[in-house]
Amino acid sequence: MPADFDRIAIIGVGLIGGSVALAARQRGHAVKGFARSEASRQRALEAGVVAEATIDLAEAVADADLVLACTPVGQIAPSLIAAAGHCPAGAVLTDVGSTKQAIVRDVEAGLSQRPTGAAFVGSHPLAGDHRTGPEFARADLLAGRCVVVTPTDATLPGSADRVSEFWESLGADVTQMPAAAHDAALAQTSHLPHVVAAALAGTTPHEVLPLAATGWRDTTRVAAGASALWRDILMTNRPPLEASLSALADRLEAFRQALAAGDAAAVEQLLEQGRQSREAVGD
Amino acid sequence: MPADFDRIAIIGVGLIGGSVALAARQRGHAVKGFARSEASRQRALEAGVVAEATIDLAEAVADADLVLACTPVGQIAPSLIAAAGHCPAGAVLTDVGSTKQAIVRDVEAGLSQRPTGAAFVGSHPLAGDHRTGPEFARADLLAGRCVVVTPTDATLPGSADRVSEFWESLGADVTQMPAAAHDAALAQTSHLPHVVAAALAGTTPHEVLPLAATGWRDTTRVAAGASALWRDILMTNRPPLEASLSALADRLEAFRQALAAGDAAAVEQLLEQGRQSREAVGD
Repeated sequence: MPADFDRIAIIGVGLIGGSVALAARQRGHAVKGFARSEASRQRALEAGVVAEATIDLAEAVADADLVLACTPVGQIAPSLIAAAGHCPAGAVLTDVGSTKQAIVRDVEAGLSQRPTGAAFVGSHPLAGDHRTGPEFARADLLAGRCVVVTPTDATLPGSADRVSEFWESLGADVTQMPAAAHDAALAQTSHLPHVVAAALAGTTPHEVLPLAATGWRDTTRVAAGASALWRDILMTNRPPLEASLSALADRLEAFRQALAAGDAAAVEQLLEQGRQSREAVGD
Repeated sequence: MPADFDRIAIIGVGLIGGSVALAARQRGHAVKGFARSEASRQRALEAGVVAEATIDLAEAVADADLVLACTPVGQIAPSLIAAAGHCPAGAVLTDVGSTKQAIVRDVEAGLSQRPTGAAFVGSHPLAGDHRTGPEFARADLLAGRCVVVTPTDATLPGSADRVSEFWESLGADVTQMPAAAHDAALAQTSHLPHVVAAALAGTTPHEVLPLAATGWRDTTRVAAGASALWRDILMTNRPPLEASLSALADRLEAFRQALAAGDAAAVEQLLEQGRQSREAVGD
C-alpha cells in the first residue's frame, strides 16, 4: 500500500529507473515514465517496466508527488531543475546518482534561483548491474540493498524521511549521511573498484585472455560497464577518488617490494589483511 | 567409460582433488584418496568425494596408473617424488598446481635422480573457488574449463596426450604450452587479480565496508582465498608477477593523472580499453 507518495514520475527508464518502476507498481504506486527520445520511450514500454511513458517532461511530472531522476549523472541536475517548474507544489524530487555532492549542489542552486514549491533531497541506491537498459530491470533490484539519502541544511524538513520511507517500502535499507561523506565512501567502495577493474582488464594482453579464469572474471566484471556513464561518475568525484587511488598504489607497491625481496611473510600479511576485510563483507 | 587410466590416486582431497575425484568416479574410474592426516582423511570420506582414502602414501599409489597431486603448490613436488617410488612402472604423474615452472623443474629433477619408471607432466585446471575443502567439491567444477598441460623435452612421449585426454574426458578444454608461457600468462590472469583484490580489500577502511556494493564485492571476491595457499602461489611466480604488477601500476597512474588533469576524454579512453578487454571474455 503506498504510504505517502501516490503518483511517481521516473525520469530515465533504464536499468535502475525501470527496476524502481517495477517495484513501485507492485506496491500500488501509479508510475509514469519520461524518456528523452521516442526510441527510449518505446524500449521502456516494450520491456514492460512502465505502462505509461512520455517524451514530454511537463506531462510526465504534471501530477507527480515524487519525481525520481534515474538518468546518467550529468543529466540529473538539469532534468530535476526543469521538472521542478512543471510539477505540483509540494512535490518531492530525488535521484539515484552515484555521486552526490555535485548533483546536490547543482539542484539546490537551481531550485533556490527559481523557487517552485518542490523540495529536493539526494539519494543513491547501492544496486546495479554492469548491464544497462530496461530489459535488465527487475522488481527486486533494491531488495536488501543499501540506499544512501543525503539531506543538507537546505533540505525541507521531513522530505528526507519521506524519501527514506519510500526506499524502505521497496525493501531497501536506508542510511542518511552528508553528501561529502557519501562521496568519500563510494570513491573507495565503488569508483576505485571500477578503475581497478578497468586497469586490470586493460593491461591484460589480448593473447592471454583465453586463460582468464574465475579470478580474472570476478575482479574485472564491473569493467564491462558503459564507459561514458562511468567517465561522468568518476569525473564528478575526483578528489576522493584520487586519494583512494594513491592508497591503493602504495599497497600494490608494498606487494611488489615484498615479492622482489622474496619476503613470504610480508606477502602473506598483505594477503591476510585483504582476506579479513573481504570476509567481513560476505558474498 | 575410462579410456586409458583405470585406477587413479589423488594426493590431497580438497576442493580440486575432491572435484576431480567426483568427476572421475562418475566416469567409472576407480579412485583412491591420500590425505596427510587422519582428520583430513575423515573429512574427505564424510564429504563423500572418495569412497576409499588412506594416510599411507605407498598404499594410496600402489596400483595407480595415474597419480594426481592436488595439494598446495609447495607440497606438490615432494609428494610426487615420494609417490613415484611406490607406484607401478608406467604410471603417469601429474598435478593441478597454479604455477608450473618451479613444480615441473623440481619434479623432473627428483625423478631424474632416481628413475622409477613413472612419467610426469604438469597440469593446471583453471577452475576453483575462493572456498577450500572437499565440502565444496563438485563433479562439474572442470566442465567447460580450460586445463593447461605443460610438457617439456624431458616428458615421456605420449604422456602429455594421455593426461590431456583424461582432462578432456572430465569435460575440460585442454591447451598444451611450455611451463614458462603458462606462468607468464597466469601471472596476468590469476595471480595479479588476486594481488589487486587483496590490495583493494585491504585498503578499504573498515568504516565504509557497509557501503560496499556489487562492484566492490565482485572486484575483491578472490581476496577471500586462503592467505597461505596464495602466498605460496605468488612466491613461486615472482618475476612474471612483478612485471604484470608494474604494468598495472603504470595504468593506475595514468588514471590518476587523467583525473587530476580533469581530462574526461583520457578517462573515458582508459575505461573503454578495459571494457573492450572485459567484453572479449564474457561472463
